[in-house]
Amino acid sequence: MREEENLLFHISTPEDLRKLKPDELIRLSSELRQYIIDMVSKNPGHLGASLGVVELTVALHYVFNTPYDKLIWDVGHQAYGHKILTGRRDRFYTNRTYKGISGFPKMSESEYDAFGTGHSSTSISAALGMAVAFKKLGEKRHVVAVIGDGAMTAGQAFEGLNNAGIAQADLLVILNDNNIAIDQNVGALREYLLDITTSKTYNRFRNKVWKLLGSFGRFSPNARTIASQIQSGLKSTILDKSNLFEGLNFRYFGPIDGHDILHLVSVLQDMKRIPGPKLLHCMTVKGKGLRQAEQNQTAYHAPGIFDRETGLIIKTTDAGVPATYQEVFGETILELARKNTRIVGITPAMITGCALRTMKMEIPERVFDVGIAEQHAVTFSAGLATQGMIPYCNIYSSFLQRALDQLIHDVALQNLHVVFCVDRGGLVGTDGATHHGFFDLAFMRSIPNMVVAAPMNSLELRNMLYTAQLEKNKGPFSIRYPKGSGMINDWNKPFEEIEPGKARLIGEGSDLAVLSMGNPGNFVVKAAEILEQEGISFTHYDMRFLAPLDEDALHSVFRGFKNIITVEDGVLKGGLGTAVIEFMCDNGYSARVKRLGIPDYFVEQGTQDELIRECGFDTDSIVRVIREMV
Amino acid sequence: MREEENLLFHISTPEDLRKLKPDELIRLSSELRQYIIDMVSKNPGHLGASLGVVELTVALHYVFNTPYDKLIWDVGHQAYGHKILTGRRDRFYTNRTYKGISGFPKMSESEYDAFGTGHSSTSISAALGMAVAFKKLGEKRHVVAVIGDGAMTAGQAFEGLNNAGIAQADLLVILNDNNIAIDQNVGALREYLLDITTSKTYNRFRNKVWKLLGSFGRFSPNARTIASQIQSGLKSTILDKSNLFEGLNFRYFGPIDGHDILHLVSVLQDMKRIPGPKLLHCMTVKGKGLRQAEQNQTAYHAPGIFDRETGLIIKTTDAGVPATYQEVFGETILELARKNTRIVGITPAMITGCALRTMKMEIPERVFDVGIAEQHAVTFSAGLATQGMIPYCNIYSSFLQRALDQLIHDVALQNLHVVFCVDRGGLVGTDGATHHGFFDLAFMRSIPNMVVAAPMNSLELRNMLYTAQLEKNKGPFSIRYPKGSGMINDWNKPFEEIEPGKARLIGEGSDLAVLSMGNPGNFVVKAAEILEQEGISFTHYDMRFLAPLDEDALHSVFRGFKNIITVEDGVLKGGLGTAVIEFMCDNGYSARVKRLGIPDYFVEQGTQDELIRECGFDTDSIVRVIREMV
Repeated sequence: MREEENLLFHISTPEDLRKLKPDELIRLSSELRQYIIDMVSKNPGHLGASLGVVELTVALHYVFNTPYDKLIWDVGHQAYGHKILTGRRDRFYTNRTYKGISGFPKMSESEYDAFGTGHSSTSISAALGMAVAFKKLGEKRHVVAVIGDGAMTAGQAFEGLNNAGIAQADLLVILNDNNIAIDQNVGALREYLLDITTSKTYNRFRNKVWKLLGSFGRFSPNARTIASQIQSGLKSTILDKSNLFEGLNFRYFGPIDGHDILHLVSVLQDMKRIPGPKLLHCMTVKGKGLRQAEQNQTAYHAPGIFDRETGLIIKTTDAGVPATYQEVFGETILELARKNTRIVGITPAMITGCALRTMKMEIPERVFDVGIAEQHAVTFSAGLATQGMIPYCNIYSSFLQRALDQLIHDVALQNLHVVFCVDRGGLVGTDGATHHGFFDLAFMRSIPNMVVAAPMNSLELRNMLYTAQLEKNKGPFSIRYPKGSGMINDWNKPFEEIEPGKARLIGEGSDLAVLSMGNPGNFVVKAAEILEQEGISFTHYDMRFLAPLDEDALHSVFRGFKNIITVEDGVLKGGLGTAVIEFMCDNGYSARVKRLGIPDYFVEQGTQDELIRECGFDTDSIVRVIREMV
Repeated sequence: MREEENLLFHISTPEDLRKLKPDELIRLSSELRQYIIDMVSKNPGHLGASLGVVELTVALHYVFNTPYDKLIWDVGHQAYGHKILTGRRDRFYTNRTYKGISGFPKMSESEYDAFGTGHSSTSISAALGMAVAFKKLGEKRHVVAVIGDGAMTAGQAFEGLNNAGIAQADLLVILNDNNIAIDQNVGALREYLLDITTSKTYNRFRNKVWKLLGSFGRFSPNARTIASQIQSGLKSTILDKSNLFEGLNFRYFGPIDGHDILHLVSVLQDMKRIPGPKLLHCMTVKGKGLRQAEQNQTAYHAPGIFDRETGLIIKTTDAGVPATYQEVFGETILELARKNTRIVGITPAMITGCALRTMKMEIPERVFDVGIAEQHAVTFSAGLATQGMIPYCNIYSSFLQRALDQLIHDVALQNLHVVFCVDRGGLVGTDGATHHGFFDLAFMRSIPNMVVAAPMNSLELRNMLYTAQLEKNKGPFSIRYPKGSGMINDWNKPFEEIEPGKARLIGEGSDLAVLSMGNPGNFVVKAAEILEQEGISFTHYDMRFLAPLDEDALHSVFRGFKNIITVEDGVLKGGLGTAVIEFMCDNGYSARVKRLGIPDYFVEQGTQDELIRECGFDTDSIVRVIREMV
């Protein structure tokens, strides 16, 4: 098809979309879906979620007067269609790339992005804030939050519902129910939703309800009358289980087919006229329209490059590339769990991403995917630990921010033996600002009793995982590592204990000392190789532990050197470099200390290499800083 | 009554309790209630909540085999009766005092305290962890979580329910529904519960249901049969709204009268035999048994000293004591809100404690108590801010730990104009380890875009509150202050702007420099008066802002002094002292810097003065450190 024959290419903003006739929306949806497939096949991103909401996206912008009306995409990885329809079609090829557009809604990028997202379950709270503001300002604007069934399991979503239920603000929550998060969704809520949508009792009454809803289009009485009619109609017909939401004062509508665009449009038009908090339950299929993506929803959540015709994922060659930290974690915890029956694995909805799936395959009864529920994951782990289990609670660094209080109050304060595997530490790459793991080293370090470790490679990860379960290391123990390659091939060795608070001396030299934490130590090693040829040599410690600090190593460094560099992939305000200069001051030393790490601003998306360069702790930057210092 | 005639004084452990005949439990409950009243009248603590669960406490220990069975008190301020019955009766006079017993359950204090609490809504998660552990270990132990209707509004409680609903673990959740948190409980859940407990439809069926339940006592078939009978009995009779919990796969029972001890005992005995997750809805009266406490539940939540006979609160004389920071906050935000209609106040369930009540009285429609829901409070504020409102979101420091992710992801990353009023910063006193506000300065400082301010007295608080709403200071702005006296009487002055990042020079001297953050600056002033008589003088800056730092002031300090002391009431790992030495290193200065603040362990309860002395930043300690340094 030539571009000019394509409806999509005539749509620069939702204004253009709203000029289409309803029956053109089917064609537009199909074009939009194909455009997403084309673009994401070449430039990897979140495919499945965006394909699932194509019709919903078109219908929402068709019915609501965006950007005057506010549309909030929970998590936001499903917003590709939204981005393409709101002025970013021609820039969409830069999605998730350095200096390109973000893979998530972002207020600074477009007025159509009413609220920035990335982490889940914030949309109802934010939408309620907007709805309340409009009420105060006397502005008649609609606010719509689109939230998935996975995101609905997080506590914040419940907090939002609970408050919206009494706020008498006009707010539409669309429950985008595809019965999956990144992995299989879990929890009682999932079963509840499944029950509603598959119940025969319910289906018998459904037509009647929707006939009732449909008839409102014909006349236009005031909204409150419509609402009460619909409500009483539903009350008498709908399955009584639906009132989980009704119990929270939301008017519940649905479930409806989220791919029937004409029906969606008509239902949303009715919804617009109903005041107060209401929830529309839409059934969608994640990956809709691409066979493989529908069939293998976890793999096609973010499939990487794939063939746009056949849908097959194109494996980028990784021969010789060392196993990832994630793979090593997955293999190692299984191995440890085989030997130590007290070990259990906990993940809040990242069982594939963090690789606990490996253990789940062999010992399913000792792996717990608790759904998107970081707070619960940590306190649940604490409860397990009180009875002598050893929970390995694997949470991505940026999501661990959701559980700081539980870390402090439920685990560290009670000195419980919970092992925190903090995945996605440092710069995560293309997911960008919302997902970087910047803050964990700083906040973990300030919690009493907490061991804070970071391996420099997968062998060290393996041995730290082993060390953490030893009886003598009872207490909160965190191990933090980045996304991606574990740097070495030869990681599958017999376990060796690593004494907490013991640094590893990697190289000795005379010009200065470099102290590194975790994976960036590898950049330091490369810098040493380069500088050796220039006759510059330095002492390099892989610190391994931020708490407890290796005081012996630090004494020896401060006695031996006047120039010291610290390297880490966490915020400079509060991490390794800070701990080192605190030590220096407390012990009366004085030295020139140059700290490399994450600067004091929110870093955007790009490849990990691009971002590490931007932050200035890549090999070249380290080399340059050392040359300047010597 | 003589002690030996008293049942209570024959009970050293629940073992003794379980030897009583059922009809003696009424007398015991009455004695326990009176003992709590007697003790708390002299030694202040949380009165209302503990009086409300006297019968529940007795019944739980009577029916369950504690400590083998596990009993978790959510929040834990209602656990006084529990403490008295579990070996701590004779030490209870030390409740909440320095080196005394904690006002909350604490694992290290007693084997009967199955899980330490203090912050709300953790009990279901922890109980589930234990129940799952027992299942794995093949141990038949019961796990009971007692959670209030207020605590049930927090997201973590929902996360716990959602997971327990599929875990097939034996777990009893007791919903202690007194229809109040510290203040009036809020949210749709509250209305839902009120609806259940007051519904005539329901009450008509209640007897039938309980007759059904009651009959199980007579024979003893296997538990699953009982369960299914009860379940189907309930299903057909109970109000359909009850299935908010049933929707989450919990078997719902109740509501029952939480003060009818004999009925409670018989219901709990039935519950013991029902497998799987189940919820018992108990209606209780907060403050039960003390007329004034029942009538004025907020005032008697923690009434201070009162007359045990009349129940009247004894006002401790505070003539001449300056207004508290809280009072000044309450008055000032009202004054600002009168002038700036975009200002709104948000609190997660602390409307009295934080003094937003003052504004609520005059401008109710602009104050939002969102219930115990810190995550929602912050994102809701962010949503309001996107539409030009200026939310003053008041959260206690230790509870702000619950919303770190929302601070970062929803507010700071989007650079939204939300003012955070961080109350209860520093050492809170008798509430102890769970409630101290230790970590906020450290974690707030590492968040880009965030202004981090702390006033030294109530006048500075007032002017910071004024400054924070100015258009030119748009962006995240936090103001942090402790519980208690705002130090000066003369605070009600015309507003003056305080430029963010500008320190205040309080005194000049020659021997060294002292930099303080917030309220501890007052201890430094007193130290200056003492040392002046010894001929020691120093320069003192009230830094006021931890971010941005006053670099001019710091340059001048490091140019002028080789000895510097920093004083703050936050963790030493990452706060003001750390920021100062980071500045020193980054700018190539060298000096001896002694940092005073909160050391690296969890400080327990005591008076604020006792604890500040323990931490070593009271006036005497500052004087001593300065003498040593000079």
